[in-house]
Amino acid sequence: MTVATDIDSFVFAPGFSARATACGLKTSSVMGASDLDLALIATETPCSAAGIFTTNKVKAAPVLYDQEVLAQQAHAIRAVITNAGCANACTGPQGMANTRQTAALVAERIGCAPEQVLVLSTGVIGRQLPMEKLSRGIEAVTSSEALVGAPFVARAIMTTDTKPKVASATITLAGGSITIAGCCKGAGMIHPNMATMLAIVTTDAQIEPALLDTALRRAANTSFNRISVDGDTSTNDTLFLLASGASDVKIGEAELDVFAIALSEVCTSLAKQVARDGEGATRLIEINVTGARDEAEAHTVANSIATSPLFKCAVHGGDPNWGRVLCAAGYSGADIDQNKLALTFGPADRYGDNDSPAVQVVANGLPLEYEEREAAATLKSDPVLVRLDLGQGSARATVWTCDMSAEYVEINAHYTS
Amino acid sequence: MTVATDIDSFVFAPGFSARATACGLKTSSVMGASDLDLALIATETPCSAAGIFTTNKVKAAPVLYDQEVLAQQAHAIRAVITNAGCANACTGPQGMANTRQTAALVAERIGCAPEQVLVLSTGVIGRQLPMEKLSRGIEAVTSSEALVGAPFVARAIMTTDTKPKVASATITLAGGSITIAGCCKGAGMIHPNMATMLAIVTTDAQIEPALLDTALRRAANTSFNRISVDGDTSTNDTLFLLASGASDVKIGEAELDVFAIALSEVCTSLAKQVARDGEGATRLIEINVTGARDEAEAHTVANSIATSPLFKCAVHGGDPNWGRVLCAAGYSGADIDQNKLALTFGPADRYGDNDSPAVQVVANGLPLEYEEREAAATLKSDPVLVRLDLGQGSARATVWTCDMSAEYVEINAHYTS
Repeated sequence: MTVATDIDSFVFAPGFSARATACGLKTSSVMGASDLDLALIATETPCSAAGIFTTNKVKAAPVLYDQEVLAQQAHAIRAVITNAGCANACTGPQGMANTRQTAALVAERIGCAPEQVLVLSTGVIGRQLPMEKLSRGIEAVTSSEALVGAPFVARAIMTTDTKPKVASATITLAGGSITIAGCCKGAGMIHPNMATMLAIVTTDAQIEPALLDTALRRAANTSFNRISVDGDTSTNDTLFLLASGASDVKIGEAELDVFAIALSEVCTSLAKQVARDGEGATRLIEINVTGARDEAEAHTVANSIATSPLFKCAVHGGDPNWGRVLCAAGYSGADIDQNKLALTFGPADRYGDNDSPAVQVVANGLPLEYEEREAAATLKSDPVLVRLDLGQGSARATVWTCDMSAEYVEINAHYTS
Repeated sequence: MTVATDIDSFVFAPGFSARATACGLKTSSVMGASDLDLALIATETPCSAAGIFTTNKVKAAPVLYDQEVLAQQAHAIRAVITNAGCANACTGPQGMANTRQTAALVAERIGCAPEQVLVLSTGVIGRQLPMEKLSRGIEAVTSSEALVGAPFVARAIMTTDTKPKVASATITLAGGSITIAGCCKGAGMIHPNMATMLAIVTTDAQIEPALLDTALRRAANTSFNRISVDGDTSTNDTLFLLASGASDVKIGEAELDVFAIALSEVCTSLAKQVARDGEGATRLIEINVTGARDEAEAHTVANSIATSPLFKCAVHGGDPNWGRVLCAAGYSGADIDQNKLALTFGPADRYGDNDSPAVQVVANGLPLEYEEREAAATLKSDPVLVRLDLGQGSARATVWTCDMSAEYVEINAHYTS
């Protein structure tokens, strides 16, 4: 299975239309690479939907609204409307009313009930949606004025992202082929459990909401819940999976594993694109923790390393500072034995495409003799590969993050998000 | 009770001598403001001692050694030898042998048993102590070549610190006056539970090791365990409290509360100096969380805010980004209700010395109308005061941290620690 990530040829799965427009919601500081700020993904006939939302106790209005919608209408969704520039978070009853009105305006234009429309918002917290601009935007995005095509949607949902993020794959099952295709946004505040991250994945498979939900949770656990940019999680994070059924290929219990694995691949590609595009980041870091007693332990240690600013700064400077990796493992909360740790910088065997050789720097918790220059080179490659073996079991986990640069601070010192 | 923090007039409590020297352990990148790198605090007669150590699973040799010493000799300590420039962490059996040898060399020079000498190390991880240099240093620091005086000790223990950190206070009890005086170091990797932080506090009180330990744990919980620079904790963190008994004022159960409170004040002063001197920091941030159901809840929320890079960057930029504060509270894990949150930037009543007025920016989870310029001014003051009321109880907690600047990244991208 190949996952395509080219933006120009990107299309959603059959059955979904994609349109975008600019209605003036993005201020110059959150324009990203595009002034498009309103995107509509819609179907002609009701589709199945599943969603995963932020675990933050402070939830934006659209998150609360979408949870309500999916609890009742997960079998009959017609559209997802997404605006960038305003997160509609910490906006109280007025914010909730605006989300409902947004859904109603879209529903009226495409001819469905308001509760068949999902709403996503991203951008500055604590400001009300400018409803006049937004309603003009909804009119435009549902008229001939709209820019038509999935690449425009991928651009319209961006905030501090520097690149649109798309991924698609086609798999063949006994009943025929299906496509899984999605886009997402997210730059700062990325952390396991859906940080300021919006993702919309579509498929033309025919699948019930309950199975869709199961597949989505499995996929999220090894993709979006395994990335970290700065350890912050946001008020708006949402991952949607919509199934149009246009392929007439049915996914039942028997096909669920294959479907979930393919979905994981697409979601992992999107998640890695998010990590790589972290605010101020210059390269992706992949942390593999092996030799753990169970996956939870491996994940705990990998996540602790991924969220250590000291480690991320060291990678940025190309400093093979293995002490910071061991240190982060040590305070992760996992019950590790420092005398069993082995650390390697550079490609594991499966990364044959990486030019720099792997350099093992620690064995049995002690530094080895190694060529400083070679170790430093592994940290200048992209992705940077870090493998820590705990030596106490056979479970493993991978987490993706990015290096931390001075630019991260510059971006976040002056952007009200 | 006043806590004095002037470096030039700083002295340890009566009964302790203080000496320092430079023996070439600090490389230019870890020189700090001083090339002094070896410090000796000693007593003529055995003193009581208590220690609190890093919770990191990866522990440096001196930490393991000191834990052993205090388990057996807490009533009969004669000296603390501290070196900067090499942490002696991840150094295996050789590292442990070097720590023991360090203690033995000091013991021989001052005339006591090796197990009466505590050892502290700070600096680069994963390198063996250069024992030749160190043994020449120990000779020098116990000879007439040594620089004599507590200010030299405070400078000798520094690594990336920009300033020495000292605090002392005198309290009067029924039996007479006692002094509590200490110094510490720490810049990056500061986090609750003793990050790369070394602190040595002395007193001339007469007090049993068990009571000393109780007092120290109480003091640490509201001081060193309430600061955060970057969320990392280190392999070497240690806080020592030594009691010479030179005052002849006995601290028993009856006097313990008063003693512990005074000790807390001294430790809090030191801890705040550490937070303010965080790597690349330009000012101290004090986060008060009030209205919690219990202190643990208040602490959890305050700590989550204190470790949010997004929030710390916003403070650096003088951006009154209340959304990031609410967001960090939301993902802290505490069960908060976003509709009850109230947030104020700027001085609480007790900070009459701060010129900028307090600006309440959020009530009931919603932003208030406020003057952007006034709110921004509160974030440019030093300390920056942040007060978040959870509206669900009467417990509170305070955590100190610092802003995050581009310089933090510069320092940590190129310093092997």
